[in-house]
Formats: sequence, structure tokens, C-alpha cells
Amino acid sequence: MQTFINLCKAIVGNEHVLTSEVEQKSYLEDWRQRVVGKALAIVRPSNTEQVAALVQLCQDHHVPIVPQGGNTGLVFGSIPDQSGTAIVLSLKRLQGIRKIDLDNHTMTVEAGCLLAQVQEAANEVGLLFPLSLASEGSCTIGGNLSTNAGGTAVLRYGNTRELCLGLEVVTAQGEIWNGLRELRKDNTGYDLRDLFIGAEGTLGIITACVLKLFPKPTQTQTVFTSLDSIEQAVALLETGKKQLGASLTGFELINQISLELVHHYFPQLQRIFSETSAWYVLLEVTNHGTVYDLDHQLEQVCATALEQDIILNASIAKTEKQAKNCWAIRESISAAQAKAGKNIKHDISLPISQIANFVKTTDAILQTAYPGCRMVTFGHLGDGNLHYNVSSPVHKDPEQFLEHQKIVNQIVHDQTMQHAGSISAEHGIGELKKAELRRYKSKVEMQLMRAIKNALDPQNLMNPGKILE
Amino acid sequence: MQTFINLCKAIVGNEHVLTSEVEQKSYLEDWRQRVVGKALAIVRPSNTEQVAALVQLCQDHHVPIVPQGGNTGLVFGSIPDQSGTAIVLSLKRLQGIRKIDLDNHTMTVEAGCLLAQVQEAANEVGLLFPLSLASEGSCTIGGNLSTNAGGTAVLRYGNTRELCLGLEVVTAQGEIWNGLRELRKDNTGYDLRDLFIGAEGTLGIITACVLKLFPKPTQTQTVFTSLDSIEQAVALLETGKKQLGASLTGFELINQISLELVHHYFPQLQRIFSETSAWYVLLEVTNHGTVYDLDHQLEQVCATALEQDIILNASIAKTEKQAKNCWAIRESISAAQAKAGKNIKHDISLPISQIANFVKTTDAILQTAYPGCRMVTFGHLGDGNLHYNVSSPVHKDPEQFLEHQKIVNQIVHDQTMQHAGSISAEHGIGELKKAELRRYKSKVEMQLMRAIKNALDPQNLMNPGKILE
Repeated sequence: MQTFINLCKAIVGNEHVLTSEVEQKSYLEDWRQRVVGKALAIVRPSNTEQVAALVQLCQDHHVPIVPQGGNTGLVFGSIPDQSGTAIVLSLKRLQGIRKIDLDNHTMTVEAGCLLAQVQEAANEVGLLFPLSLASEGSCTIGGNLSTNAGGTAVLRYGNTRELCLGLEVVTAQGEIWNGLRELRKDNTGYDLRDLFIGAEGTLGIITACVLKLFPKPTQTQTVFTSLDSIEQAVALLETGKKQLGASLTGFELINQISLELVHHYFPQLQRIFSETSAWYVLLEVTNHGTVYDLDHQLEQVCATALEQDIILNASIAKTEKQAKNCWAIRESISAAQAKAGKNIKHDISLPISQIANFVKTTDAILQTAYPGCRMVTFGHLGDGNLHYNVSSPVHKDPEQFLEHQKIVNQIVHDQTMQHAGSISAEHGIGELKKAELRRYKSKVEMQLMRAIKNALDPQNLMNPGKILE
Repeated sequence: MQTFINLCKAIVGNEHVLTSEVEQKSYLEDWRQRVVGKALAIVRPSNTEQVAALVQLCQDHHVPIVPQGGNTGLVFGSIPDQSGTAIVLSLKRLQGIRKIDLDNHTMTVEAGCLLAQVQEAANEVGLLFPLSLASEGSCTIGGNLSTNAGGTAVLRYGNTRELCLGLEVVTAQGEIWNGLRELRKDNTGYDLRDLFIGAEGTLGIITACVLKLFPKPTQTQTVFTSLDSIEQAVALLETGKKQLGASLTGFELINQISLELVHHYFPQLQRIFSETSAWYVLLEVTNHGTVYDLDHQLEQVCATALEQDIILNASIAKTEKQAKNCWAIRESISAAQAKAGKNIKHDISLPISQIANFVKTTDAILQTAYPGCRMVTFGHLGDGNLHYNVSSPVHKDPEQFLEHQKIVNQIVHDQTMQHAGSISAEHGIGELKKAELRRYKSKVEMQLMRAIKNALDPQNLMNPGKILE
């Protein structure tokens, strides 16, 4: 294998082939520090041609490749297994912003750009790249594409998939596919772009992309509401969609336990309401132009919702500080629950019409199985995406509760499927959920996926063991 | 082959296997009546199980299948070749509206539903299905999906691809893939949905789909503007996007010759401006809610555009009749040019920043090659989609000009590629453009497409000879 390592060094330079344990550590450990993989080497190419040369080399030497962006994934998709036979191919040095086309509202960037860099580059030319995630300062756009990341503005702008017009990909054969189209309409053959997006690096390596940009909103407004039930939250969503149309940008659900955790662990955040309620919804509304009176329209939405007993209370942010406080509450839930001890997490999606039933049924099953367990339920209700997390009963040992993870996962995911949902809304499958994928997907769908994998990567060297076995 | 025909009859019933010339005619001739194919039989299943049984039968007997919806395609994608060895599998009897989910804003319909039926079913429950095409009374939603149809509201709502959440597909092996997901987020493996969408029936047969529905706009407004140049139209698009955001629903470009053809052949349509100009743009703007003063905002857009010398004149429709007249002008261009005699058509897309250059350069090349040739240029500028059609010089024989079709196509498509565009924006490849696909696509992309085709349809029985050879 020393020959192989030397050939890697010849391609990317000695200093970009990392073989010592110390240098490798951050590339091998998963984001939540649960697993550490082993690798032959970490290889850090600086451009697409080097990526292609490395893939060809790996083909010749039958060396598996684990492509990696910011390594912020939550399903062990970007770290190698324990065999130590694979290289981690880090895309982080591919950092070029190749082109910004102002008239076309597009931007061509390389896979290793941080999401925050992409947002900032758009911002600098007076435009918006709307993808926004908690990890935006660490995750790369290549990783966002490979996992089809979601975030808080999907309701208005779609998932990462919908924000991408074209790709450059190094295929499993080490060839470069230049699909960097800047077109909003292009019906010339199979949709290869969407096949590579969300494939978690198992079909090829995304090295660059063309992203859609949008005019910046001229107005943004934030509202925090309290409600009795999910049914009411769904009714509020309907009212909001009808009266606000595309201006409704975010619609985030928060349950009482989630809110209490935040206020307990982050006492500096201001409480919105003096009285508690079972559920809360945070709405974000944006608009363009100078004529629209967003506040007036929002007051009407809230008035309608109050009249129809949909909401208990509403607080429209009056200052930017108040708006930021609302979002800080929402974005502190993950950190607050981490401080409260580990819990069993689920990233699921459901038809919006099924969410209330799902929560009622699944909460009841879990309460029967684990009396007193606490539900930390929140998420992007506007997209049907719930982060449905289960904490141990108070005064019970969280570590002991974690031993039931598999059973809890199965209860939640069985119910998700019963309610026509998805067991991975925005995090992907990686290595973590591949057994569950086999459990829940039809034989036909698994066959179709395997046929595509075999066709594009017959040697099974592109991120093997992820998504499929 | 009589055995095979009898087995088809056993599946769908005698009356739904058409073998006589008279019965077959409308299924074999293309929409523009240019080509008539030959078929073993037209087979008309009534449900997904029958489609699956027919595909299995065809596999066993090595009979090619041409799936067909409304047969309104423009690239010979839905008619068989001259060999007479294939069956046409018509999806038109799969007409069920299986489900409308009001809270989820989704609708599950079968492939044979006419687009107009789908629109109407949404309308009846107070929602909008925004896909809109000239052929909506004849084309089917299955065909719209298989060709990823575009239309006039892509700027706001996207292509058909963006309007679909899930599919049911009969695979080339005659198995039924139930991918009828009603989810806005689902990252569980490869994006099979988008692979079948736009594949023109060459990878499997779409039998049903889940479509996104939207709240109906409460306000709609139409503006007709006149301009000196495409550069100005692009500047108007920028101003419109900035000030109107997602409210800007349609942005249609029309050149002077197109407008004159319409007024010549449809004198009942009212002229908007007394003075002519080189270009016109039709804007459609919609909004939700009760507060927004759309007219006021539009007046501001027009005032800005006039002040900055972007437009020469603007006419905001004051009545619904005036608005309808504006759209009737736009939608009569195709009929008017048909009345004026055949011309050489191109359905291309370009980065919006390249359109002005493309038109200038290509117009000049064509004028040199065919002095006096007339450009009927119009299209969905908001999506970069041009219908760039070339008519013979006045007083020259149009039929003689048509003999130059291949050379004209090559001039236009070479320039399209030079300007980073696509040779098929919304019509697909079918049989008509497959040689050009080979000419313009990279070897890598063709290999990837062939690998996928071989993987999913190894016997090459699904619409063979379309897209790929």
C-alpha cells in the first residue's frame, strides 16, 4: 500500500496525504462523537482534476473512497468503516467561487465551499442564497447537495435539490462530467443531476455546482404563537398559506417540553408568553417591494386565527432584537436537549394531514412502553418534518434508557411508515439507517437502487456500505 | 403474434386491443401530423395491474412498448417507428383521481387524467394546480411528467418535475413501484422519482403521481409593455423580481413579427399599443391575502422602468377582458405562425444573461445565410426559454425553405450550445432530436445515460429508439 500512498502524494502533494493518527482524527470521528472510523489515508485534492486522478488511482488499486465535506453529517455517511482499507477524500480544498451571474441569478461554486461562504458571496452581490442550517459555518455545499439538506426555509425555497441547477461530478470511473448548466429548463435526457444529489457520494463525487440565487426580501417579520394542539397548528398553516402565499417562509413547531428545556438551559433568552401552552408555532414571513404592508397582513392572519380559536396568543416581533430572540429559542432546542442528557432522536417527515394522528398514536405507545418518557417534539411543520426525540423519564438513568434505542426507533419508524411518512426527512441514510432502509423500502425500490448503483459503480468503491450494503 | 395479441386481449378485454388501421390512426400519427408510425396493436389497459401484466407479457415475447398519453408531444416521443413490431400502450383509461388531501395540499391522480381535468379537480376544492399549457385539454399528466413539461407559470411554480412529490411506476420488468409519497422532504436513498420524470417512457411507465397543490391567488394582474431590446427585457425582469418577488408569475417575451402575425390572422384581438416597437413583454403578477395593493406595486414597477428607460410604454389591464386579450395575443402566436405557413422551430433555453447575445449573433448568421428570413421569436423569458422560429423570406416558397431545416437547426443549436444553452427546453428529445443529443452531449454524459438505461431496461423494450438509439 505504500506504493498507493506515494501515488496519492504525487497527485496532491505530500502535505495533503494525512497518515498519522493525530492528523486524521477530525476526519474519522462523526459530528456527534459517537463513532471513529479507520482510514488508509486522508487525501486532500485541490481541484477537480486531482479528484479525477485520485478516483482513477483508487479504481486501479481497488481502494474504496469515502468522500467528505465538512463531516457534519448525522448518519455516519462521511466517515469510513473500521476496516482501514478506504481513503477519506476530503473536498474541503475545492473552495473556488467560480462565477456569479447577476442577470441569471446563479452562482457556480466548488464543493468544498462552506455554506456560510456561499451565503456571504451571494449577500455581497445583493442576492440571497436561502439554504440555512444550524451547521452552516462548518458544512460544505457539496455535503449539502450529497445529502439534499433541508433547513428552515424549505417551505418557501425548497430543499437543496431545488436550489441547484447543475453539477460537476467525478464519476466512479474517474471521468469528469461537466453538467454545470445554468438553465431553469433543460429536457435533454435523464436527470443525472438529481440522481447524484442525495446519493451521499455512493454514485460519484460532486466537485462543483450551479446554485440559484434570489432577490433579497425587503421585509422580514417574525411571529410567535401559542396553541392547544397540532390540529390547530395545521389550521394555522392553512390560514397562513392562503393569506400569505409565498411570503410564508418558515413555519416551525415547538412543543412545551422543548421550550422549557430552552428556557432552563438558556435563561438569557426572553420568554415570549407568561402562560404556557401545549404547542407553539414560529412563523417567518418575508416580502419584496415597497408597497406591501406585511405587518398589517400578519395582524389580519393573527386576528383570523384568534377569532377562529386556532391560536391562544400571538406575539409579532416589534424589533429585530425580538425577532432574533424568537429564532434563538427555536435554534437552541438541540443544544438544550443535549445539555439535558442524551435522547433518542428521529428525523421524520409525514403528510401534514397525518402529523396530529401520528403524534397522538406514537406518544401513547411510547408512554405505555416507557411511562414518564419525555417527548422533545419540534420541527419544520410547514414541510411535514418533525424532529421527534424521546428523553428518558425524569429521575431515570438516561444511559440506561439509551439501551432501548433500537426498540424506540422501531416503534417510531413503524408508526411513521403506518402514517405514510419517511424515516429520514433531511439527514439521509448513511451507515446508520441502512438496515432500516431495507426494512421499510419495498423489494422493487431496493432492486431499482441496486441496479443503478451497480451500473454507475460496478466495483462498489464509492462510499461503500452507505445507503446500500 | 396472434398468440401475443390474444394474451393482450385476455388482460385488457377484446375491445381494448385495437388492430385495424382506422382504429389505430390517431395513436400512430404525431400531433403536428408529420409522421405516421406502425404498431402491432394499440393496447388500452384500465389500471396499473393491467399495465404491469402487459409489460410482463411484452418481456416474455420480446415486444417493444411505446407508452402513450395524449399523444400531443412534439418530438415523436409517443409514436412507434415504422417496423410495426411494437405495441402502443395507451394510458388514457387510467383516469382515476385517487385522493385529494386538503391539509397536505396534495392530489394523487392516475397517469391518463387530462391536464385540464387535474386543474379542474384542484379548482373544485378551492386549490390551484399551476401547470398550464396550450394543449391542456388534450395532454395527460403522465405525458406531462414523462416529458417534464414547462408552460407559462414555471417562473413562479417550476416545471412539472417541481410539482410532483411521488410516482407509481411499472418497471421494465413489469413490477409495480409504489413511490406515491406525499412528502415534501424524504431523503431515503436515490431519487428514483426524478429519474423517471423526463425519461419519456424509456425507463418505465408512470401510472400515477402525487401532485402539489397551492392556495389560489386572490389577485391577478396583467401588464403589457413595449421595449427596444432584449437587454431592456432582462433589466425589466430584474426590476420585476426585485420588487415583486414570488408574485411575478409569468414573464413572456414577444417580438414585433410575432405580434404582427397575431394581429394579421386574428384581427378580433385588440391592439395594445398604437405604436410598434421591436419587443414586448407580458407580465403576470399574482398575490394572496387582502392587504397587498398589487396595482399600486405594479404602477411602481412600471414607473421605475419608465424612469430608467427600460420600457417604452406599459399598459396595465383594467378589466378581466383586457387581461384575457393580452394572454390571447400571447397564446395565438403558434396558431398565427401556422397560418402563415410552416417554419423551422426551435425550443431552446439559455442563461438569461446570454439571451440578448444569442439572438443578436444567431439572427445575424441566419440573415447572412438566408437574407430576408423572418424571425418569429417569443417565449418564457423568465425561465430563459425561447421559441426561436425561422420563417422563409417573404415572397420565397416556404416549402423550399423547409428543405434547409437541418442546416438551420444546426446553426441555431450550435449557437445555443456556444451560449451555454439547451437544445430542448421543454419538449424533450424523443426520436426527433436524438441525433442532435449525440452531437451535443459529452461522451461521459451519454455513457452515464446508457448505463442507467441498460441497468433498468436491459432488454431495451421500453420506448426503444427514443432519447438514446
